Amino acid sequence: MQVVSDPRVYQQACASAREKGGGVALVPTMGALHDGHMALVAAARARADFVCVSIFVNPSQFGPHEDLARYPRAMEADGARCEAAGVALVFSPTREDMYPEGGETRLVVGETAAALCGASRPGHFDGVATIVSKLLVLTGSCVAVFGRKDYQQWRVINRLVADLFLPVQLVGVPTVREADGLALSSRNRYLSSEARSRALSLSRALSQAVRRFDDGERRAGILRQEAEAMVAREMDELDYVALCDTDTVQPILDDAIVPSRVLLAVAARIGGTRLIDNVVLGEDGAPSQQEQDSAMASEQ
Amino acid sequence: MQVVSDPRVYQQACASAREKGGGVALVPTMGALHDGHMALVAAARARADFVCVSIFVNPSQFGPHEDLARYPRAMEADGARCEAAGVALVFSPTREDMYPEGGETRLVVGETAAALCGASRPGHFDGVATIVSKLLVLTGSCVAVFGRKDYQQWRVINRLVADLFLPVQLVGVPTVREADGLALSSRNRYLSSEARSRALSLSRALSQAVRRFDDGERRAGILRQEAEAMVAREMDELDYVALCDTDTVQPILDDAIVPSRVLLAVAARIGGTRLIDNVVLGEDGAPSQQEQDSAMASEQ
Repeated sequence: MQVVSDPRVYQQACASAREKGGGVALVPTMGALHDGHMALVAAARARADFVCVSIFVNPSQFGPHEDLARYPRAMEADGARCEAAGVALVFSPTREDMYPEGGETRLVVGETAAALCGASRPGHFDGVATIVSKLLVLTGSCVAVFGRKDYQQWRVINRLVADLFLPVQLVGVPTVREADGLALSSRNRYLSSEARSRALSLSRALSQAVRRFDDGERRAGILRQEAEAMVAREMDELDYVALCDTDTVQPILDDAIVPSRVLLAVAARIGGTRLIDNVVLGEDGAPSQQEQDSAMASEQ
Repeated sequence: MQVVSDPRVYQQACASAREKGGGVALVPTMGALHDGHMALVAAARARADFVCVSIFVNPSQFGPHEDLARYPRAMEADGARCEAAGVALVFSPTREDMYPEGGETRLVVGETAAALCGASRPGHFDGVATIVSKLLVLTGSCVAVFGRKDYQQWRVINRLVADLFLPVQLVGVPTVREADGLALSSRNRYLSSEARSRALSLSRALSQAVRRFDDGERRAGILRQEAEAMVAREMDELDYVALCDTDTVQPILDDAIVPSRVLLAVAARIGGTRLIDNVVLGEDGAPSQQEQDSAMASEQ
């Protein structure tokens, strides 16, 4: 397994691999790899011979008071997991590699990035779009694999790939969960055992909404407020509980009747840690059903 | 010569040509081609077997009160000139092709885009950066040729290519001029013969500055104000006359001593037409000297 930090060396390695045929796939990550990331790697390996994992904690997607400094770094363990999973190349640039002095260009995504995490983390998705476009341009024609746990990010990336005509085939992998339903996240490492237990309210609220939806409830206000009540009871601070269009991530008002597929997304804080989770009602099934095949989660 | 309007067909044509070897070059234009554009084509042909000219009047770089609607279109004549010049492919997409409904992504370039035309045309360079990034991504690994008449645009594009790691080799071709010094521009078609005659004040002001610089004048205020006086005497309205860093396009104050290479850039209006011109003092020589080899202008 190659480990590369220079962007131009990485670009060349991808170009050489592509020439050999068999395809190139990229799994962009911020490291601190968990089973959710490894499901992305498995999806990538199923689609290309040359699988790259980028590991870069991207400063431009963190706000000034967010957890950039304390975000977990685990380079050695990450490298070992990648090697064991058959990754061909780990791309781990420095901040100066990806944002050299004098750099000025950034991407801005519009409506898709406006609500939910975009509203509570100003500039977050501009930072995501900027780093992902750099990584995709460096990789060149490829398959790129993302997790749907970051659902809005997944939609933002779909938007930018289409808008810039990037020669990239996107794959979105369903959220991988612990046995009790907690969505895997590098930030789970921040949680005390009590906070972790309370954080289960997120996936439980989603499961409850799936049951209510499957039983025929279509009133947006009822679905949303029931989920909100469950999350608010356990978490320190609610960021949002929202029903949204699955494509554009535009919120659906409480007095509406939801369509046959609708995103339910939640974000809340506990013990200083911000967690997110989501489910697509009318598609995904309850998190409790997803658990069973989480280890081999294939994309939809 | 192929004429293609579908972006994905264009992308595929470039990919196929690249596989054959011999290289791909792109000359991005807004059409209404003149000898300046044809100098770009010649520079492209010297560097690649498969030369593409894009013809697209990009709406996102025009302000609400600018000349988007009346900007000259001459598709038939443009095609004939391209064919005669050995162009392999003309890419002429529609507005909907390049900005499909639902598109949301745009590029923003910072400091390099802030002064000069960026100050008087808010959003102009974001529009330029957005369309050029789309064209370069579609073209893929290539040589891309631009004119230095749009000097600030040339620097903005250098910035975005470096910042996004686009696999593009940029070539900047010196300004092509009429025998009397007027810089070629598609907008010259708007000029009455009186306005055209007064517009010569731009290139004359630049030539005068070259002579003063060559004679040893290094006071920014003197160089700038002399040029400004000459332009202001003839043109209806001055937009800017500025001395700037040749790389970052940051203005140099009047009380400074200019460095050994410095950009002198002018923009002014006459009869409702906005014209720009520039010279790099310490490098280019006077426009009056450039005329002689304008037809075969090679990049520097």
